Amino acid sequence: MTQHSQQFASDNYAGICPEAWAAMERANSGSAIAYGEDRWTQLAADSLRTLFGTDCDVYFAFNGTAANSLALASLCHSYHSVICSSAAHVETDECGSPEFFSNGSKLLVAPSNDGKLTPEAVHRLATGRSDIHFPKARVVTITQPTETGQVYTIAEIKALSATCRELGLRLHMDGARFAHACATLDCNPADITWKAGVDVLCFGGTKNGMAAGEAILFFDRAMAEDFAYRCKQAGQLASKMRFLTAPWIGMLESGAWLKNARHANACALQLYRQIQDLPEVDLLFPVQSNAVFLNAPEQMLDVLRAKEWRFYTFIGGGARFMFAWDTDPAGVQELANDIRQAVSG
Amino acid sequence: MTQHSQQFASDNYAGICPEAWAAMERANSGSAIAYGEDRWTQLAADSLRTLFGTDCDVYFAFNGTAANSLALASLCHSYHSVICSSAAHVETDECGSPEFFSNGSKLLVAPSNDGKLTPEAVHRLATGRSDIHFPKARVVTITQPTETGQVYTIAEIKALSATCRELGLRLHMDGARFAHACATLDCNPADITWKAGVDVLCFGGTKNGMAAGEAILFFDRAMAEDFAYRCKQAGQLASKMRFLTAPWIGMLESGAWLKNARHANACALQLYRQIQDLPEVDLLFPVQSNAVFLNAPEQMLDVLRAKEWRFYTFIGGGARFMFAWDTDPAGVQELANDIRQAVSG
Amino acid sequence: MTQHSQQFASDNYAGICPEAWAAMERANSGSAIAYGEDRWTQLAADSLRTLFGTDCDVYFAFNGTAANSLALASLCHSYHSVICSSAAHVETDECGSPEFFSNGSKLLVAPSNDGKLTPEAVHRLATGRSDIHFPKARVVTITQPTETGQVYTIAEIKALSATCRELGLRLHMDGARFAHACATLDCNPADITWKAGVDVLCFGGTKNGMAAGEAILFFDRAMAEDFAYRCKQAGQLASKMRFLTAPWIGMLESGAWLKNARHANACALQLYRQIQDLPEVDLLFPVQSNAVFLNAPEQMLDVLRAKEWRFYTFIGGGARFMFAWDTDPAGVQELANDIRQAVSG
Amino acid sequence: MTQHSQQFASDNYAGICPEAWAAMERANSGSAIAYGEDRWTQLAADSLRTLFGTDCDVYFAFNGTAANSLALASLCHSYHSVICSSAAHVETDECGSPEFFSNGSKLLVAPSNDGKLTPEAVHRLATGRSDIHFPKARVVTITQPTETGQVYTIAEIKALSATCRELGLRLHMDGARFAHACATLDCNPADITWKAGVDVLCFGGTKNGMAAGEAILFFDRAMAEDFAYRCKQAGQLASKMRFLTAPWIGMLESGAWLKNARHANACALQLYRQIQDLPEVDLLFPVQSNAVFLNAPEQMLDVLRAKEWRFYTFIGGGARFMFAWDTDPAGVQELANDIRQAVSG
Repeated sequence: MTQHSQQFASDNYAGICPEAWAAMERANSGSAIAYGEDRWTQLAADSLRTLFGTDCDVYFAFNGTAANSLALASLCHSYHSVICSSAAHVETDECGSPEFFSNGSKLLVAPSNDGKLTPEAVHRLATGRSDIHFPKARVVTITQPTETGQVYTIAEIKALSATCRELGLRLHMDGARFAHACATLDCNPADITWKAGVDVLCFGGTKNGMAAGEAILFFDRAMAEDFAYRCKQAGQLASKMRFLTAPWIGMLESGAWLKNARHANACALQLYRQIQDLPEVDLLFPVQSNAVFLNAPEQMLDVLRAKEWRFYTFIGGGARFMFAWDTDPAGVQELANDIRQAVSG
Repeated sequence: MTQHSQQFASDNYAGICPEAWAAMERANSGSAIAYGEDRWTQLAADSLRTLFGTDCDVYFAFNGTAANSLALASLCHSYHSVICSSAAHVETDECGSPEFFSNGSKLLVAPSNDGKLTPEAVHRLATGRSDIHFPKARVVTITQPTETGQVYTIAEIKALSATCRELGLRLHMDGARFAHACATLDCNPADITWKAGVDVLCFGGTKNGMAAGEAILFFDRAMAEDFAYRCKQAGQLASKMRFLTAPWIGMLESGAWLKNARHANACALQLYRQIQDLPEVDLLFPVQSNAVFLNAPEQMLDVLRAKEWRFYTFIGGGARFMFAWDTDPAGVQELANDIRQAVSG
Repeated sequence: MTQHSQQFASDNYAGICPEAWAAMERANSGSAIAYGEDRWTQLAADSLRTLFGTDCDVYFAFNGTAANSLALASLCHSYHSVICSSAAHVETDECGSPEFFSNGSKLLVAPSNDGKLTPEAVHRLATGRSDIHFPKARVVTITQPTETGQVYTIAEIKALSATCRELGLRLHMDGARFAHACATLDCNPADITWKAGVDVLCFGGTKNGMAAGEAILFFDRAMAEDFAYRCKQAGQLASKMRFLTAPWIGMLESGAWLKNARHANACALQLYRQIQDLPEVDLLFPVQSNAVFLNAPEQMLDVLRAKEWRFYTFIGGGARFMFAWDTDPAGVQELANDIRQAVSG
Repeated sequence: MTQHSQQFASDNYAGICPEAWAAMERANSGSAIAYGEDRWTQLAADSLRTLFGTDCDVYFAFNGTAANSLALASLCHSYHSVICSSAAHVETDECGSPEFFSNGSKLLVAPSNDGKLTPEAVHRLATGRSDIHFPKARVVTITQPTETGQVYTIAEIKALSATCRELGLRLHMDGARFAHACATLDCNPADITWKAGVDVLCFGGTKNGMAAGEAILFFDRAMAEDFAYRCKQAGQLASKMRFLTAPWIGMLESGAWLKNARHANACALQLYRQIQDLPEVDLLFPVQSNAVFLNAPEQMLDVLRAKEWRFYTFIGGGARFMFAWDTDPAGVQELANDIRQAVSG
């Protein structure tokens, strides 16, 4: 791509990690029944149930767009609404996918600086209108960690789910980087999901080292009624399902799912520590997972661009750097050095 | 699965072929831009354009359900209808996916014994109703080869497309096993697509040795306007796209796309030749691609089942055997022997 | 339209009956709260509850297309299917409306000569497939009377609902001409609906003398959850609702709903009786409601056309004549005379 | 409703005006062909073409929800977006109807104090994102007059349409109270629609004295391709269409469409003039059509409520009063008096 051995624009830029690859290779032997009736898929679902310590219903989709949209569509009707943060990926980066899969559900957006939803915001949006001229609030979706890299604490999730229960809302978690939140909190996956009142989790594999694929976990099996049909109709049932599911076995059995996330998180912290003394550079958000959002002068960013670093930019001169399972600490060091140079230059 | 080293219930049961695997492995080095902006995806699209000898617009979807449904949805509106054969996969095995992606388009079904559509059937269905109480016919979809393994000749496709042009209809080809048709006809892919009047082709990779993925080729680029948005919204844009597209490069460069299909077709012929002398066993359809449909007495099928052969059955005692890139001729021989034994027993 | 004072091509050709008109006139005095919060709407719903002798949930839609499609959409999901007769209006004359409102539900069509569904056909269609590649059957819809004018007996409906209960299906009744069935059977509306196991009825007002409007009755209120939102979102909530609902009060209080239907039915019988002795003219279906379907030689129909009679024709030389609340028996006589003449001529 | 002879909470509370009523009565004589093939419908469409002085394509829908949503759906695809003001009815009061009819189009909302969209806002929203992860802007919708009673000038509309042309956007006008804008501007309907660059107008009849019904005018007939099918499928084709269309003839021929609007506008001005000297009462918006938005102390509003006046309230203590074709100036005087009393009390 560029002169640098690595780039940190997105954790989607990373490839397939060795554990996921090995699992695909093992699965690629001989015949297997199609459409998820194979033993790899059964084993992957069982592994997820073991990890979460509960008999949840597990499905697999090709990507996060579909996983989140299918899950949300199953939790509401077209005339219902979904409450989310203004930073939510479903609102900002899915090209209307939730609206499409649900045939018209409206997203009710709560302004948010850090990307988090609060019980107050949920309460306000859910109760602001109660007439039939406005879609009835039915679901709350939170991203863990948020698109700005912030991690909800267990207490925060419990407070949100309590509000949801009170208002008759279901709670969905977009866990595109769920493993990174577990790594940050050093908690059991159950602690921030079903034990905290989450109804459905979309657990991301892609950003954590897999080629593709997200798992959808329904902690209340009643909510998953006929969900397999929904996936099929929406083009999310893989014929050679084993290649979508076997990597989950490899990731979970080896512990790579957590190791990868810890590594990516550590790289973010590494960058932060190496530049935190620079007065010209501020953090837009605390570093809580695998991203660093810098607030830096535009000319400084131009210097970085001239050095062929790629990154997403935001309003007000911010720059996002994201780290993945394969990030080389030397590359982080290289970036830190260039930032220091850009400042001094 | 069973005692047999191989099963022939479906060509979806096969794994990833060496050429596709090697291409994925090559692509799995270092970082690559996400969402199809990578060089593998560019190269895969270029390779397809080269293969078809035309500057078509190329997209990639995760599976055939989505590829066909997205293509059909782009060719009509919800109040239009799609003409297909009664055997068409979009009618019989997609759980309403075309209706879902198009938000309500109706499939108009032509009865068909061999799975093929005829110009007469198209004409009859397209002109049967012309009032606004019935969805206006807008698209014709044919499967090449059909779900019953029959291959449309170049002349047949040209006759269909002439009828489509006459009636203002667009012509879509479901090519889940497109390579097998090319192998049978020994023709250039262009000959049975754009040169014969096909507007959009869904070219299947999965059944021909890839892990997942179908290519959608718009031979008229105007019909593909904003199609990338449609894919994204419908959950069919892969973030790590290179793993969906690099295998196409491997398949096309190596010639495996055709070699695999030829091998599968040959296995079907092998089975046929080894049992054609049995008076108790009839073919339901001529063997023209990688499937053999047998019309055999139920007790004979029971014997095969007892020997742990898996196969799909049909009305009237038929049994389908499908062959893939990895079919071992010894396995075919084994099956043929068991069929002979079942007959004599 | 033509030289005849009346035409019998459709009962939609009739205007507004005096009782409906008077009710609209009464409602058109002063202000009334919008969107169905007015007293007329409340009273209309109450009148329907009284007529059916049960505390059902009542909604109003502008036409039958919407009423039936909204009801069906509320009874299933997009990946479910709806079982209907091949003659069903939802299949043949709604331009894909059920598919649109449900975002893709498939209609499973049972061949039928007389337009009726049978328990056997329901059983066969509902159990024919049980894999996720085909939409799961969830609803049965019957038209009472059928599009061919046949009336289901109470016993027939009970048999169908028993099959539905056994198979976990819901039973919907398209009652575009429901009053005519009540008139034929001389039964209480409850007898052929909730007491016979019907879950939801769409009770047609338009064909029975109103300007527009159908009532949707949910006999199980749980099935109607949030249905008001569904109506609103789908463009079926009238702002000046009183003009859609007041006519129901007029029709029910005056008994016109039944009187009109009886009159139309009687006109059909009148025609039948006046031509039944003609050997050249056969009935395609028994006369059981307000339609007469004649099987007559094409040259005879041409004579009628030359005399400027309008009628729908069907395969095999049939002709449909439909009678309405305003049919003048003299006009029926005129038609009968012309038919006799056409035969003798 | 209350002790007052009239209420001003909404112009939907008014009944049917004499001219519309008389036209319905005239249409209610004898038979007429159904589904819009009648002469009344033809005449209504012709009258609208004459009024606008152009050969536009004209359709009729039951209400504004459907008219606007169908029009918008015809102007874009599900993966496109529609730019509107934050006050737009399609955003705030249609229960997700535009999203439903379009199968997922997203509304991009421009903050607005007076309810108007500006070229700058359109430009900003249309160009803010250009990647496939966000729905491509395709349509702009403006409400004339706005939901806050503000009227776009001819110049403002021309400026908006110029921006639309520049950006490849289509321009839709929600004219639920279109007549009121014409009355305010004293202009030809053409001046603020097709001559100013509007592509599609939804011309409201209900709020201006009809029982129900909106006309949809496509000034570019190419954009209306197959729109009749769309209406039918979406449940918006009336069988006895004449009762939906004849009132348009009565309204246009008599001039009531404009007379009614002028009257309602005048009533708003009357109220304004009678209370404009009160320092305690401010206007939230200038009075430009048939609404008065008052910013008044909550205790004053309580006094009005105690006197059984009904009105919508808004954030910050505002109250909306709307006037209709049937508003009695004495009632307005009564309200003005009560407001004065409430202030002095």
